[in-house]
Amino acid sequence: MEDRASRFEEVAAALGHGFEGEIRIGGNYSPVIRHENVAYVSGQVPRVGNVVVVTGRVGAEVAIEPARRAAKICAMRALALLARELGSLDRVRQLLRITVYVQCDAAFTQQSEVADAASDLLRYVLGPAGTHTRTSVGVLQLPKNASVELDLIAAVDSIDTGTAA
Amino acid sequence: MEDRASRFEEVAAALGHGFEGEIRIGGNYSPVIRHENVAYVSGQVPRVGNVVVVTGRVGAEVAIEPARRAAKICAMRALALLARELGSLDRVRQLLRITVYVQCDAAFTQQSEVADAASDLLRYVLGPAGTHTRTSVGVLQLPKNASVELDLIAAVDSIDTGTAA
Amino acid sequence: MEDRASRFEEVAAALGHGFEGEIRIGGNYSPVIRHENVAYVSGQVPRVGNVVVVTGRVGAEVAIEPARRAAKICAMRALALLARELGSLDRVRQLLRITVYVQCDAAFTQQSEVADAASDLLRYVLGPAGTHTRTSVGVLQLPKNASVELDLIAAVDSIDTGTAA
Repeated sequence: MEDRASRFEEVAAALGHGFEGEIRIGGNYSPVIRHENVAYVSGQVPRVGNVVVVTGRVGAEVAIEPARRAAKICAMRALALLARELGSLDRVRQLLRITVYVQCDAAFTQQSEVADAASDLLRYVLGPAGTHTRTSVGVLQLPKNASVELDLIAAVDSIDTGTAA
Repeated sequence: MEDRASRFEEVAAALGHGFEGEIRIGGNYSPVIRHENVAYVSGQVPRVGNVVVVTGRVGAEVAIEPARRAAKICAMRALALLARELGSLDRVRQLLRITVYVQCDAAFTQQSEVADAASDLLRYVLGPAGTHTRTSVGVLQLPKNASVELDLIAAVDSIDTGTAA
Repeated sequence: MEDRASRFEEVAAALGHGFEGEIRIGGNYSPVIRHENVAYVSGQVPRVGNVVVVTGRVGAEVAIEPARRAAKICAMRALALLARELGSLDRVRQLLRITVYVQCDAAFTQQSEVADAASDLLRYVLGPAGTHTRTSVGVLQLPKNASVELDLIAAVDSIDTGTAA
């Protein structure tokens, strides 16, 4: 189970970004809310620090590889938020659902290929607990002109079982 | 806790709309479904009575302030439905997730600013229980040409604890 | 309760499609994930076997009736996945939420009428357990150029109560 943290760091290094430290969220909402043993993570855009690092319309200004990179960064942010909330990624029991929104051109139909980059990463870092159901859609526009946005729902250890984990 | 109802009425008065009475839902679905202590609320458009009061494309025909007003009306409808289902807004334990869809222009990137109006309202009426995770996206079109649609998931008191609340 | 399976077959026959057999899912994700007594179903497009049978933009290349047929096929796929996961549709206690994405023209506002076809089908096959909350939105593009995508969340019998069902 300790491997999750090291696989997370391995992927972060490969992407060339750090995901520690503050993740800023504007507005009167929260990055993660846990109720009993289900955690909801707010929609993540590919932001590193204060900068959204992949912007623009996929299929027009943005090719599929940068879009897949954007999906990976969104997934890493969601994992970083879960790790901070739970104390450790080891307390993720099972991902339940991810929704992947791709800001794309009207003719772009490879939303699934973009979302696959996030799915593969989540499965790699978390192992079988990273399998999830998924919905991917192509939308007209995303906040901050982000190319991808991803939210997720996960089953997690209850707060009071943390000591036994 | 009694303040939630009065804060709800205060916001309704400020918006100049009533949210009591029938909230019509077409189709073979339900405005709220509760399972154990989680309630799902159907996507709400800014409808007052039979009229969708904010329509059109945000960033083109609709400016940001009317769009924010639309988001507030959607949030108030969701609260009104929860209050009717639960008997009282005091039985909302914690909002878990809102998703805000903004029908917008292809160049509009202020979805978050529109969604903030709903987030702030929910936090104001419900207090800390109104904090939530959030996903906001810009979509091509919404039912009835509505400018905004909002759905939510909330943790609520179980049915059988209602008598003790 | 046995009627659910026969009503499912009746609707499949009326649509002229079979939904048994393999339902292929690409990528590192799962068609259904169950956590305690809630099941999440991945976004379904109107695919029969290997072919997405309704493609194109609703309100432009695709009229409302084919779009409604697409919504029905998505709903049938979701039911087929639940039946395979649970062993029987009788183990669906209550649908909780469906989200219906319609790939549409910028001027198309009848998303609800498309989604109604799915809602009516789910209510017909499952009876009162098929009632659900719903969000329907019009999006720019869907995977494989599908005209409709639908995902759902359902309350189901727990694994260990299966023997008693």
